Amino acid sequence: MTAERATAAVLIIGNEILSGRTEDANLAYLGRRLTDLGVDLREARVVPDVRATLVAQIDQLRREHDYLFTTGGIGPTHDDITAECVAAALDRPLIENAEARALLVERYGHDGLTPARLRMARTPTDAALIANPVSAVPGFRVANVYVLAGIPDVMRAMFESVAHTLTGGPRLLTATVVAPLREGDLAEPLRAIQEQHPDAEIGSYPFYSSAQFGASLVIRSADPDVLQTVLDAVRAMVRELGAQPLSEEVEPEARRS
Amino acid sequence: MTAERATAAVLIIGNEILSGRTEDANLAYLGRRLTDLGVDLREARVVPDVRATLVAQIDQLRREHDYLFTTGGIGPTHDDITAECVAAALDRPLIENAEARALLVERYGHDGLTPARLRMARTPTDAALIANPVSAVPGFRVANVYVLAGIPDVMRAMFESVAHTLTGGPRLLTATVVAPLREGDLAEPLRAIQEQHPDAEIGSYPFYSSAQFGASLVIRSADPDVLQTVLDAVRAMVRELGAQPLSEEVEPEARRS
Repeated sequence: MTAERATAAVLIIGNEILSGRTEDANLAYLGRRLTDLGVDLREARVVPDVRATLVAQIDQLRREHDYLFTTGGIGPTHDDITAECVAAALDRPLIENAEARALLVERYGHDGLTPARLRMARTPTDAALIANPVSAVPGFRVANVYVLAGIPDVMRAMFESVAHTLTGGPRLLTATVVAPLREGDLAEPLRAIQEQHPDAEIGSYPFYSSAQFGASLVIRSADPDVLQTVLDAVRAMVRELGAQPLSEEVEPEARRS
Repeated sequence: MTAERATAAVLIIGNEILSGRTEDANLAYLGRRLTDLGVDLREARVVPDVRATLVAQIDQLRREHDYLFTTGGIGPTHDDITAECVAAALDRPLIENAEARALLVERYGHDGLTPARLRMARTPTDAALIANPVSAVPGFRVANVYVLAGIPDVMRAMFESVAHTLTGGPRLLTATVVAPLREGDLAEPLRAIQEQHPDAEIGSYPFYSSAQFGASLVIRSADPDVLQTVLDAVRAMVRELGAQPLSEEVEPEARRS
């Protein structure tokens, strides 16, 4: 099943996230939206703005996945090196993109287009710009690499402007059963259900609050019939263990009539 | 400077984070605490619980860094495969750890120690347990790999119980100047300051709110004198650009008397 689905990686560029100064707000958004689009986000990496690291990681991830999304490092300051690193990773020249330059002139005027701002017009050759409705400075796509801003509002707007162009596989449908059970008590029957249904992916995510332990059992499959069958089996398992689900959630698309 | 400092990587194991179902809450904590301890967190990766992926990444990251911290995948269910992957990555046998088993017996009793729970007693050979004051199930350290829980409260307690054993370099001191300036207007003088002071790391993090753009200029150095010199230069730059800092923050340890 996995072989048929498009895969993606996310590369989050930013020393401030590794130092704990800033919490990343982009990964969860991209994960949800790519899932919606039927694209499997298979890996995310957070790296500092060190040229050799960036070039190597961009090159590896764009080869291993159908799509690579980068966030951050596209501004005008000395620590904004994403464009040059993408160019190096793809072995393309870094050029001044005429269309990007025109957008910056429109925004800042000829007088305001300092050398630092002009850096933001640089892209590898054959890049398609990604519009930035918030602050004009564009992102770009080159081959399968999508270069997005780091500021969450801007990143989201950029992603949404390319989302319709992404080719995903069948969307993974999800059903969740939250059970007031310890994982140690449900692990064996849950494993048996997983082994009987290799077409579904079953995850168990334990939690506790107010000294009450429980687990969210998450079933994912592209096939609504498989999803329903496994959901029924998980519900039955919870009851056989003497409990009632605390809550259930089934995506509307996955409900049977 | 970097060569003298201890480095670390974090490997966050969990499909639910890649699907956007759950937001990771561990990376920012680990980033802050490692920075406190003088350890440079150089990379973080979020990966699914796929055995081949995990083994390869654990092996790569533990070779490249002084410390590798993993979070998640140490429970009793079929998708908890961290211990076996760490053993495979380090080419050590996976054993039933007698000390871990004793902790589980104490917690669950002999009768409650189901085969699924007994999986949580497995570690590679020569592992040192990491206490879990919340739910008894231990993490472990083997060589330079620290295997921690994914639940944030438990992860934090585990990290704190080993924090004193980590050998960091001199702590990086940080000063931040928040300026009501566009990055495009400060990028050139800021680059000049960075080039004059290669012993400091200067980052610029743009933000905007209520249509007001600004940038947080973050200076990091292990040397308090370098920090102060660069801070003075950045302050002077902001004033030369006709602005006043909106706020400043200097770590107490970095203040001159």
